[in-house]
Amino acid sequence: MYRLYDYLPSGNGYKVRLVLKQLALPYELIELDIRTGATRSAEFLAKNPNGRIPLLEVPGKGFLPESHAIIAYLAEGTRLIPADAFERARMWQWMCFEQYNLEPNIATLRFWLKLGRTRADLGEKLVEKKKNGYAALDVLEESLRDREYLAAGQYSLADIALYAYTHVAHEGGFDLAPYPAIRAWCARIERQPDWAPITQR
Amino acid sequence: MYRLYDYLPSGNGYKVRLVLKQLALPYELIELDIRTGATRSAEFLAKNPNGRIPLLEVPGKGFLPESHAIIAYLAEGTRLIPADAFERARMWQWMCFEQYNLEPNIATLRFWLKLGRTRADLGEKLVEKKKNGYAALDVLEESLRDREYLAAGQYSLADIALYAYTHVAHEGGFDLAPYPAIRAWCARIERQPDWAPITQR
Repeated sequence: MYRLYDYLPSGNGYKVRLVLKQLALPYELIELDIRTGATRSAEFLAKNPNGRIPLLEVPGKGFLPESHAIIAYLAEGTRLIPADAFERARMWQWMCFEQYNLEPNIATLRFWLKLGRTRADLGEKLVEKKKNGYAALDVLEESLRDREYLAAGQYSLADIALYAYTHVAHEGGFDLAPYPAIRAWCARIERQPDWAPITQR
Repeated sequence: MYRLYDYLPSGNGYKVRLVLKQLALPYELIELDIRTGATRSAEFLAKNPNGRIPLLEVPGKGFLPESHAIIAYLAEGTRLIPADAFERARMWQWMCFEQYNLEPNIATLRFWLKLGRTRADLGEKLVEKKKNGYAALDVLEESLRDREYLAAGQYSLADIALYAYTHVAHEGGFDLAPYPAIRAWCARIERQPDWAPITQR
């Protein structure tokens, strides 16, 4: 059985939990609190030298970090990955965009605010992350204006990956009111079979 | 024929050019100077709303941005992608790591220094990117200490993706002298058939 090292409020962990649930794959959850340094212990660093969750332990294979590598591994050959090669590339395009443009801004601000860091304390960093986070939301909104899902006209890993932090962007101080296409897309995702909220399994 | 919108000093573009060359895929190169805003023109934004190179135009399909989505698309079914599912996930793990931990620090500092920005001007940002860039190099060094290539014991997209900015890290002010495993791995990559330097096709 898979073993998942994770922290429930993590959007990166949520991507993996949602895929496991929607593909009905059983797993054991090992919860680690990233706020207390649990992912920086010598024991955890031996499993993932990059010191991050989510981390998937695959029996007989080893430890696999990086949320997008994990979900691509779990979903290979399933309905969550487009069959067409170009649409599969489109799915990866969005997953790369998420890790480079969206997550470092929206997820990081959300994490900082959850840790109790303040606007005054964050200063220029907050201004920059706000600007870059809204720029990512602008790109996402434009792309969703004329499509229901991000790749191949179907619900895929791309939607799961982008939804994870976008739907909790308000917890990072982002206002989704000016983004009607994003809000409609989030609602479509929340109507998928076996959808579950971020901190529920 | 493929058409590649690119900027020759870009490491992200280099990944794509190296894969095209090593797979002997013909393409037309459209050079854009990212320093002069060529990727922020209305004409280019219509092709890629995220305003970035590299961008691949695939005849009959459309425009594909994001270096890792592009190289995965081009290399599908070739020797550059491991046949084993878990090793393929390992390849993606490293490609995700590159975009999240290595590129935003090492490539960004390199770009800023190339643009003539100074240590005094960059201040705390430089300190942070140096620290995070060296942390990424530490993880890479540790992983390369007991292996020749990053996934499946073979040269793959993971090596191309990580090599692109690592081998020019000195242009961002990073010293690779304390990283013997990384230096030996770079040399192994440079001995691959049809390898070419970053700004040569």
